Amino acid sequence: MKEKNLTLLTDLYELTMMKGYHDIQNEDRVVFDVFYRQNPSNGGYAICAGLEQVIDYIKNLHFEKDDIDYLRELELFDEKFLTYLANFEFTGNISAIEEGTVIFPMEPLLKVEAPIIEAQLVETAILNIINHQSLIATKASRVCQTAEKDDVMEFGLRRAQGPDAGTFGARAAVIGGCSGTSNVLCGKKFRVPVKGTHAHSWIMSFETEYEAFKHYAEKFPNNIIFLVDTYDTLKSGVPNAIKVFQELREQNKLPQNFGIRLDSGDLAYLSKEARKMLDKAGFPNAGICASNDLDEHIIESLKKQGAKITSWGVGTNLITSKDCPSFGGVYKLAAIKRGGQIIQKIKLSEDRIKITNPGDKQVFRFYDKETGKIRGDLIAYASESYKQNQQVILFDPIDTWKKTILEPETYTVRPLLKPIFIDGKCVYESPKVMEIRDYCTKEKDTLSVENKRFLNPHPVHIDLSQELWETKNKMIEEKVKQKVKK
Amino acid sequence: MKEKNLTLLTDLYELTMMKGYHDIQNEDRVVFDVFYRQNPSNGGYAICAGLEQVIDYIKNLHFEKDDIDYLRELELFDEKFLTYLANFEFTGNISAIEEGTVIFPMEPLLKVEAPIIEAQLVETAILNIINHQSLIATKASRVCQTAEKDDVMEFGLRRAQGPDAGTFGARAAVIGGCSGTSNVLCGKKFRVPVKGTHAHSWIMSFETEYEAFKHYAEKFPNNIIFLVDTYDTLKSGVPNAIKVFQELREQNKLPQNFGIRLDSGDLAYLSKEARKMLDKAGFPNAGICASNDLDEHIIESLKKQGAKITSWGVGTNLITSKDCPSFGGVYKLAAIKRGGQIIQKIKLSEDRIKITNPGDKQVFRFYDKETGKIRGDLIAYASESYKQNQQVILFDPIDTWKKTILEPETYTVRPLLKPIFIDGKCVYESPKVMEIRDYCTKEKDTLSVENKRFLNPHPVHIDLSQELWETKNKMIEEKVKQKVKK
Repeated sequence: MKEKNLTLLTDLYELTMMKGYHDIQNEDRVVFDVFYRQNPSNGGYAICAGLEQVIDYIKNLHFEKDDIDYLRELELFDEKFLTYLANFEFTGNISAIEEGTVIFPMEPLLKVEAPIIEAQLVETAILNIINHQSLIATKASRVCQTAEKDDVMEFGLRRAQGPDAGTFGARAAVIGGCSGTSNVLCGKKFRVPVKGTHAHSWIMSFETEYEAFKHYAEKFPNNIIFLVDTYDTLKSGVPNAIKVFQELREQNKLPQNFGIRLDSGDLAYLSKEARKMLDKAGFPNAGICASNDLDEHIIESLKKQGAKITSWGVGTNLITSKDCPSFGGVYKLAAIKRGGQIIQKIKLSEDRIKITNPGDKQVFRFYDKETGKIRGDLIAYASESYKQNQQVILFDPIDTWKKTILEPETYTVRPLLKPIFIDGKCVYESPKVMEIRDYCTKEKDTLSVENKRFLNPHPVHIDLSQELWETKNKMIEEKVKQKVKK
Repeated sequence: MKEKNLTLLTDLYELTMMKGYHDIQNEDRVVFDVFYRQNPSNGGYAICAGLEQVIDYIKNLHFEKDDIDYLRELELFDEKFLTYLANFEFTGNISAIEEGTVIFPMEPLLKVEAPIIEAQLVETAILNIINHQSLIATKASRVCQTAEKDDVMEFGLRRAQGPDAGTFGARAAVIGGCSGTSNVLCGKKFRVPVKGTHAHSWIMSFETEYEAFKHYAEKFPNNIIFLVDTYDTLKSGVPNAIKVFQELREQNKLPQNFGIRLDSGDLAYLSKEARKMLDKAGFPNAGICASNDLDEHIIESLKKQGAKITSWGVGTNLITSKDCPSFGGVYKLAAIKRGGQIIQKIKLSEDRIKITNPGDKQVFRFYDKETGKIRGDLIAYASESYKQNQQVILFDPIDTWKKTILEPETYTVRPLLKPIFIDGKCVYESPKVMEIRDYCTKEKDTLSVENKRFLNPHPVHIDLSQELWETKNKMIEEKVKQKVKK
């Protein structure tokens, strides 16, 4: 499928700044970091997603004739600059943390190193894509966590914030742990399982509920999930479903995958009653799927109440990440490479969390060798290296007396940022979505139960390397001195 | 620009139901209503938007060869049905309330009358599009309401839920009242004003803030808004901006449109101090634009505090409708037309608000002839008609003793649903977005201050016609009797 050209999917100020850099012939190479400051929903982690679409975007980056014509109409740009745009190509490097990886605040998820004029253009679309998909992958991971071993299906297309939000959101939801989606376009584009049976309108189009079920079972003999709440769940829906199951059993036509779906009412009560009725009729294997404004907290509560639900359809609250509908990824200048020199850049703020980390960086993740759980992450310069036969001291960048000593051979370590584009050429092939999902499952296993809990999760240590910490502090002090002088 | 083919942007169950209807040769014509049950953010109204994209979707509705190939792979559909899909065309009627119109709960915003198999397919995409854009248009209207006469710019692309959410969201934001967007793709597609100047990275790429401003002013002499918070707003940013303004004034180069942008810190305090400094330097016309996590409540509060802000850039909270990120539009079966007969359909629920209104309907809006304000809306059968020379009694469908009597010649009335497609042909031309915006401004003027307030807004009366009310009650009673019999 040909991807849309998203070259103009950018804030106007990226283009006006580009013209500025073009006019003054600023040929600096710069390093920009994408990172975020707080986990969505006050959680203990996030899941990164969207890289494949960033790659598509960068590969397809070019201004078409009608883009140039439109920009000319704005009367902001001269012909020299428009000619530059018409010939624009991205020639920089991009490295990124792979999709499905567990990530934490302040870590560079993606790094652009390119001539400043190119690095500026790509800011908005990269943030848009990564922010959206990381948000939904994280939410899906939270929902799937409470559903434990049960399947969770993504059902939110009709409430998603537009077509892309429905389709790329479903992709991200599958990465985060959903077993499938109702969205057929997502199924086609990303080869993920699509699920669904029928709506209330199907039932209402027949004279009786029984007829509606019977016809459905005939048409789709392998996947029989009856929606039982159109008239009265326990008095009509479940008894009619059981009647059809019995007929199918008599004819030896009952498939492996069969059951009912509850879409309204008290799901705890109804599922327990329906379970009893199904069991009594000899259908202990009948599944009970629940939908209707679910999220991780409602699923957790239903589980606690002993609800007899075997799979979950989650819509609005997942596809919009309702309690926290944005992921605060930002794109900040970290270094300028000018005539062979690296000038590190830092942005100060009254707010400690808003102070950036300077320089060209890498993220090293340390695991306990025995358990495979994360011991801590180290944000370091890209030029540093860590090997598992050395002692490493991780220390809190603020409360520096809080130290973790990693003895040689007790840990494993890996750098998280991988090369994606080198000199404008893509050097990375995205795994298939279902492969990313498998990888993400393993990634979530590197977190402890305490990291994953919803209320006051125990944070994973995200520390700075000694070198980066010292430089950063020196830079802050210098900046403050400059201010005082003024 | 060629639109994407969104034919597969549908829930799988629409396709399985279609196959069911196809197999049993259900040739009923049906009426489905799109309506919603509660205003976003507990407001007193909503703004409908998205119709143009629904029209594009319906016009472009067809299954391509690779869609059919994909569906074949699912092993759910036989060749006969796939051949039907390959030749699929929408042949039905659609009517809708025009974009930019003020709307209320329970009113049909859009009505599909078509063979059941066609009406079923289009459910998901229509809801996705209308739900998204109506949500953002409504949010924008709330934000612009508190900004009063000030310009509000949409700046949220980087935090939008994917590319479409950024682009169609910006479109909806302009319909709801924003004066422009930073999103260049939206500007190109919909010819709405695009705005923006520079980011912190522009300032940081120069040795000094002064240089950065000076260069920017040279490059864009007609639109000079300096971002003043990179180092220190009042000690560095505003003084440097004033210095450049003074130089430009001396050279007679100060444009009409100039000023500063505040993007962090206490916007009330900083704007007042900056205003004093600008005034003192002889620049009372310098604008002060504010951005940074704004929404309608923060703008209201800043206004109350006497903040000296003249225009607003609103991002995340608008483009995601953060406090209420979904619009609960639903698509419900209202009638079946079978062999010349209309069988009205109603869906009962324990929850009164979830009981649907049966039949093929129209919405009539009554205005006070003097003030132009809305007196009330009447949901009626499409076959009814109302003219302004008759007495009309509006009564509350629940507390029926609450009556409003509209005397002849004291009101005007208009039907809201207009024909959009007839027999599959589009008979409607969407106005340009800026025209819809103008229309929407007038629409908002038909609401009273009490309807528009945020806290416990006074609801506009949404009543049922006598005929619809009687039929609905009869149908409910019959359904209840049937239940009791069981």
